Amino acid sequence: MRTTKRIQLSEERVDFDQLAIDLWEIIENKILSSENDLEIFIKEGEKRFQYYSLLVFGEFYYSKGENYLSKYITEKALRYDLTVPFARYVVQHQNEIEFPFKRYQIQPVWRADRPQKGRFREFFQCDADAVGSQSLLQEVTFVQLYDAVFTDLGLKGTTVKMNNRKILSGLAETIGASDKLIDFTVALDKLDKIGEEGVVNEMLSKGISSEAIERVKPIFKVTGSFAQKLSVLKELLADSEIGKQGIEELQYINEKIEALGLKTVTLDLDVTLARGLNYYTGAIFEVAAPEGVKMGSIGGGGRYDDLTGIFGLKDVSGVGISFGLDRIYLVLEELNLFPEQAIKGTRLLFLNFGENEALYCLKAVQSLREAGITAELYPDSAKMKKQMSHADKRNIQFVVLAGTQEMAEEVYTLKNMKTGDQKRLDLKGLIDALA
Amino acid sequence: MRTTKRIQLSEERVDFDQLAIDLWEIIENKILSSENDLEIFIKEGEKRFQYYSLLVFGEFYYSKGENYLSKYITEKALRYDLTVPFARYVVQHQNEIEFPFKRYQIQPVWRADRPQKGRFREFFQCDADAVGSQSLLQEVTFVQLYDAVFTDLGLKGTTVKMNNRKILSGLAETIGASDKLIDFTVALDKLDKIGEEGVVNEMLSKGISSEAIERVKPIFKVTGSFAQKLSVLKELLADSEIGKQGIEELQYINEKIEALGLKTVTLDLDVTLARGLNYYTGAIFEVAAPEGVKMGSIGGGGRYDDLTGIFGLKDVSGVGISFGLDRIYLVLEELNLFPEQAIKGTRLLFLNFGENEALYCLKAVQSLREAGITAELYPDSAKMKKQMSHADKRNIQFVVLAGTQEMAEEVYTLKNMKTGDQKRLDLKGLIDALA
Repeated sequence: MRTTKRIQLSEERVDFDQLAIDLWEIIENKILSSENDLEIFIKEGEKRFQYYSLLVFGEFYYSKGENYLSKYITEKALRYDLTVPFARYVVQHQNEIEFPFKRYQIQPVWRADRPQKGRFREFFQCDADAVGSQSLLQEVTFVQLYDAVFTDLGLKGTTVKMNNRKILSGLAETIGASDKLIDFTVALDKLDKIGEEGVVNEMLSKGISSEAIERVKPIFKVTGSFAQKLSVLKELLADSEIGKQGIEELQYINEKIEALGLKTVTLDLDVTLARGLNYYTGAIFEVAAPEGVKMGSIGGGGRYDDLTGIFGLKDVSGVGISFGLDRIYLVLEELNLFPEQAIKGTRLLFLNFGENEALYCLKAVQSLREAGITAELYPDSAKMKKQMSHADKRNIQFVVLAGTQEMAEEVYTLKNMKTGDQKRLDLKGLIDALA
Repeated sequence: MRTTKRIQLSEERVDFDQLAIDLWEIIENKILSSENDLEIFIKEGEKRFQYYSLLVFGEFYYSKGENYLSKYITEKALRYDLTVPFARYVVQHQNEIEFPFKRYQIQPVWRADRPQKGRFREFFQCDADAVGSQSLLQEVTFVQLYDAVFTDLGLKGTTVKMNNRKILSGLAETIGASDKLIDFTVALDKLDKIGEEGVVNEMLSKGISSEAIERVKPIFKVTGSFAQKLSVLKELLADSEIGKQGIEELQYINEKIEALGLKTVTLDLDVTLARGLNYYTGAIFEVAAPEGVKMGSIGGGGRYDDLTGIFGLKDVSGVGISFGLDRIYLVLEELNLFPEQAIKGTRLLFLNFGENEALYCLKAVQSLREAGITAELYPDSAKMKKQMSHADKRNIQFVVLAGTQEMAEEVYTLKNMKTGDQKRLDLKGLIDALA
């Protein structure tokens, strides 16, 4: 399951599954009613199983006795993805859940790798998954979801690249390198980084014959539309059953998307895409930021036929995608795409001329806020120059001056900080002017 | 600063402050460009300072050499509150920030205490603070903020309890127990748990004389409105300058709130409230859930006159409040206050009669979603009975049946799952019917 390994299995499968479920729930929620509970729990388990494996900051700590494990669970266990918790949830609630089952989840998770720009130690994982259906319409829906989200964000030029594990298997099969599938795809995946020559050399060094490489060369140069790329693959994979199956799947998805139309993203076939080959069994997605933005993929996902196998529930096919929230944020920032209203603060500062005036203004502030207009009162009756400068430095558009005269007439003097224009308005007029 | 202690200071104050700022930034952001950077950073520091103190899961680990510290920073340092990071931000950006400065922040943090219901190991901290002004209008604004939020949530019966550290100091002073302020207030704080007799016994056991306790007894039974309670305190604290100052502050806040009015919360004076006496210097807030709900405080805060002292910037007064997000969630759940639209999912399920029909339906799904109506297509062309049962189990209100006949006429048959009513509608009619 993604970055983790299978929890060690034992001869007593059923009980183990339940234990694993419970254990994960504890890790996820960090809710132990007491340390004792955990110890009892572990003792109970120890009777039956040789190992407990817990992912702790990307590593597994195996039980070396209660205290050791307890220490790491309670002090160090951190969530590293949302997929395993989701699988646990599905298995635990399999009798209440109505399948096909969809959920999204946005939550901070932790990574063990060296942090760098766009790869923070703690980051927000943002997943959407659909389980319990093998229908390719799920894949279609997720392409639409990417399109809808990037349309809302105004992120034009985004590309959703797709591939299919079956095509990669078919290619390896066709050239007689099925036993070298991983070497083959790892090399292929580097095409845009090290070029054709580099890929060929790496394949040769891994023991793939030059004849085999020669046969696969057409894919190094494949260009054109999704459908055109599929034609090249069709020729190449004419003799591979699994390869043809992969082509059919991609063709189905592309046809539906063409019929439905996309607003913002471009759907592309990238036969070099080999993301997550350890767990994806069908579709593979990866989202590239608009050209010119230096940022790795801003999303990805795929279909996995054994999501819940880790907890003992077999044959639950799922497909899911992730949004790289922190990276998308950085891309939006780089392209200046944050909408103005997401950035701007207070529109209206009431100047403070003393206790009575302040109270008079606070009543207006309250009404403005209820009308959805961001307003505030300067908290001290400081010198007017200081208060005006405060409004100026914070780029506040309007100030309100309300002294004894305004109070007597039940009006407010609204001043536009840019133009210097002043108007006397009653409360309703003030709200209307800002609405 | 809240649960932490001051970072150990050294003779070279200015440099230390900068180091402390940098260190906190690293801890908060977990962005180390490399392990080397950290080691250089620590070596540099070690020349000058004896200790580095880092809060790690509620404990301090003191530097025992580079590797030891490095290990704990990179592997274990977890955010435990948002106040220290905020103080660090204010000090680091003091020249760019325009004061008074307000910010809110919502983020997961970790606690070291034993987790239990409403006290999770990882929880969402939700803070609002205003720094750089001693104006009591900040306190007034925060009472209004509590009121606005609980009004939006429909959480009636919530009480914002206020006290003032100066009143507690005044009481201790008046009875000649200034040196026992903490013992005095800790005992007083237990009034609703252990009753008057219990409090008296605890005070006696701490060495507060029975004459002193006799003088303070009026506050054990103080009832009535905010203003009435203030009158009792005024008599009691007539000879204490600090006590009178605390009374004036609370009176000012209460008068303003009475003039402005509250929609949902009740403002109450609770003279036994002694929350956060280590750091609060003026106002103290605590929010109680509606009566009958078994839940500790769902919010709290106060004024602290030395927010940024930890990083070497003196005399920056601040006031801040927290919302206990997880607890508020539990209260809303217990009182069934989540709005229906926050719970309900898909309103409309299109049944799937085959590939062509599915595509026809997907186009409608897309239009409905764009109109803000949650709709989806059953992903497989399963038996109709199974699809209907799926809609039923998920409490989906409407299903759409669209076979070859509907496709030919460009209509959709909309069926109300509750009443069984069926209507034939074109796409526009469908959208209008659901809008």
